[in-house]
Amino acid sequence: MTSTDNKKPRIVIIGCGFGGLEAARALSNADVDITLVDKTNHHLFQPLLYQVATAGLSAPAIAAPVRHLFRKQSNVTTLLGEVDSIDTEGRKVMLAEGHALPYDHLIVAAGATHSYFGRDDWAPHAPGLKTLQDAFEIRRRILVAFEAAEKEADPALRAAWLTFVVIGGGPTGVEMAGTLAEIARHTLPGEFRRIDPASARILLLEGGSRVLQAMPEDLSQRAKEQLEKLGVEVHLDSRVVAIDAATVEVQQGAGGAAKPLTLNSRCVIWAAGVAASPLGRQLAQTTNATTDRVGRIAVDADLTLPGHPEISVIGDLAAARSFAPGREPQAVPGVSPAAKQMGRTAAANILRRLAGKSSEAFRYRDYGNLATIGRNAAVVDLAALAGHFKFSGYFAWLFWLFAHIYFLIGFRNRLVVLIDWASAYWSKQRYARVVSDISARAPL
Amino acid sequence: MTSTDNKKPRIVIIGCGFGGLEAARALSNADVDITLVDKTNHHLFQPLLYQVATAGLSAPAIAAPVRHLFRKQSNVTTLLGEVDSIDTEGRKVMLAEGHALPYDHLIVAAGATHSYFGRDDWAPHAPGLKTLQDAFEIRRRILVAFEAAEKEADPALRAAWLTFVVIGGGPTGVEMAGTLAEIARHTLPGEFRRIDPASARILLLEGGSRVLQAMPEDLSQRAKEQLEKLGVEVHLDSRVVAIDAATVEVQQGAGGAAKPLTLNSRCVIWAAGVAASPLGRQLAQTTNATTDRVGRIAVDADLTLPGHPEISVIGDLAAARSFAPGREPQAVPGVSPAAKQMGRTAAANILRRLAGKSSEAFRYRDYGNLATIGRNAAVVDLAALAGHFKFSGYFAWLFWLFAHIYFLIGFRNRLVVLIDWASAYWSKQRYARVVSDISARAPL
Repeated sequence: MTSTDNKKPRIVIIGCGFGGLEAARALSNADVDITLVDKTNHHLFQPLLYQVATAGLSAPAIAAPVRHLFRKQSNVTTLLGEVDSIDTEGRKVMLAEGHALPYDHLIVAAGATHSYFGRDDWAPHAPGLKTLQDAFEIRRRILVAFEAAEKEADPALRAAWLTFVVIGGGPTGVEMAGTLAEIARHTLPGEFRRIDPASARILLLEGGSRVLQAMPEDLSQRAKEQLEKLGVEVHLDSRVVAIDAATVEVQQGAGGAAKPLTLNSRCVIWAAGVAASPLGRQLAQTTNATTDRVGRIAVDADLTLPGHPEISVIGDLAAARSFAPGREPQAVPGVSPAAKQMGRTAAANILRRLAGKSSEAFRYRDYGNLATIGRNAAVVDLAALAGHFKFSGYFAWLFWLFAHIYFLIGFRNRLVVLIDWASAYWSKQRYARVVSDISARAPL
Repeated sequence: MTSTDNKKPRIVIIGCGFGGLEAARALSNADVDITLVDKTNHHLFQPLLYQVATAGLSAPAIAAPVRHLFRKQSNVTTLLGEVDSIDTEGRKVMLAEGHALPYDHLIVAAGATHSYFGRDDWAPHAPGLKTLQDAFEIRRRILVAFEAAEKEADPALRAAWLTFVVIGGGPTGVEMAGTLAEIARHTLPGEFRRIDPASARILLLEGGSRVLQAMPEDLSQRAKEQLEKLGVEVHLDSRVVAIDAATVEVQQGAGGAAKPLTLNSRCVIWAAGVAASPLGRQLAQTTNATTDRVGRIAVDADLTLPGHPEISVIGDLAAARSFAPGREPQAVPGVSPAAKQMGRTAAANILRRLAGKSSEAFRYRDYGNLATIGRNAAVVDLAALAGHFKFSGYFAWLFWLFAHIYFLIGFRNRLVVLIDWASAYWSKQRYARVVSDISARAPL
């Protein structure tokens, strides 16, 4: 599968999240021409995006310019551009402005976006958190809600401005709710003259029977207790059935026992649903590949598209399985370590094919799972260690902190984040309480 | 001029720039009720805004939440809101959403915005730099221009993307042009595969006969030389007569000798004109006050509105004069030290009136003037020192650096800015090369 007329093999990588970045890095010594295309100019360290949304970190602290990351890897050309379509017959990636990027091998790592389960009319009232732009919008809504409460004379409206509803009890929802509680109880008190920010209600709504469902059950319970200690009202078995500019309608309880609940809130955050990038569905259609419920493409064992060994699909866009000797294939979770590992496997398989060897099946190594909840609170599940080591609370929080700083891209950012956090921890302040544009980008 | 029914005197301050902030601080020990209203939630350290626009600093590094700054000054209530009008008869400030803020004393410090001298159609093609939002837009245009050049195959279009035109040779224009040259020559080389960023043209157009006209003539000359050494083409006596999405038309030379010049550029920055906030013109109309050419209100010697001793107008909104013993009154320049001094005088005069004394005339103390140009380059004019001490180059740059860090609000920000700069200086990198939203907010 080498290219024609003796040129170097051309590898195009779509997306510079954890998967795409790792794939390009794994090819650093290869005699190939890599084109890395992304619709933003930065790699985003998504696990800390909630910190930007909650004014704890500035955007540059968790975002590194892609072309700067690859400045010394001379086989990489970085392009800023939005992919319009993939011409799998002509082996070309078409960009929105009309540029064509021919490839011999393609890695599609276009990621995921949030999904409202068919209720896109909820989007303006309950923004999700995937991009920096999303984070700024959520930051704006949180800070403006407290400001509006300070100005509001009507007690019912004031209470609505001080009611924050987070929908979805996964890692993002837990982090958002915990941090909102911290802001209301620790950061803002003393700064307002007419309201008491500590009186804010923070509700976390989860449709299932426990938060953090990817974690062992006892850690879910521990997480719920820590959230409640921070002042979050955790509602399990609570399914949202309607959202508008002023209210969230919830059905509570399992099955026939469902009770309706109406929450008056002016700040609702969506952390419930994820869907693969639309590029996935388009690619699946043109190649007759199958997609799952959330739009991820079912890939072969070696992460390639069925019938297209020259196209690898990785990260949140792939419905991949892990093949470990002596075990049934297992579904791979949509987490950043899995995306990175898929990136390395896709790169290695391209090199194997270029060397005339056959590709290898993907094997996901699960080193564990961790989630933060707030100040001094987190849960850690180290599956890889003997005895399945689990812990929670202060030491889990420290572990989470250092793990995240360690994995942040680039020394510069790590130092800044560490200083920001140390300062935030001691002062209980949040560094980035800045809204650049007060006006709503979407109707409130 | 105390308030009725024995309540504390109510002081409303509009605007939280240097003037409004200083006025509120100067009243910290007064037995008054202060309401500070601003349309953003932060005080912006405007002298460093160009660093946000050129990706050297993140927004939170130069912006501090207003209510956090006043958390310990219990006589201040901070409100986020846009002023719609001032009811000078009823002594009420009307906010856009309908709230009314009654006052006994009012300080209007609403500042300035950029002006296109009646050519508002130029605004989408040549953004100015006053707010954080402006800075993000300029940052986006600069970074996207290099990205577009990397993608562009047509040499003429590529050259247009790599041509940066800065209009106006005042401090902002000089800083922007110098920093753009730094980015092109020092930051980006090595990161692109198809273009040489160092080949970018950076032009600074000034209508008058020298840059930095507020400076002594020899420092203007020194600044021009330092800009040229950094690689900026400085065009004096160059008046812009047309701007559209792709070109800037310039008339060069004085009077009859004018020659036309057409520049093909996709990134034009406006640093030429300033106009007082529209609130000033409205206030002048309802009170029959006079405004000058740029909309500033002519105030009395004590900074109050003629016929309205209860209303002070300060900062960039005031056409104020300085009264020094034995000298003719002098016009006060639109610089941040003047705004701060006006804030202190307005506050002191309110306290004098409350104590039954007469107000005092404003006296501006000019401690000097400094402007940075780029890496290791600045000019400093210390008028207050014996012998009118002037210097330029590396030591002027160091002086500028420490002066700005010293005056930054809050220890936290100072430390962050110092670290960011130290790191930027040694690495020649820029920390905040992040564009959150690639799509244009205005037609390009």
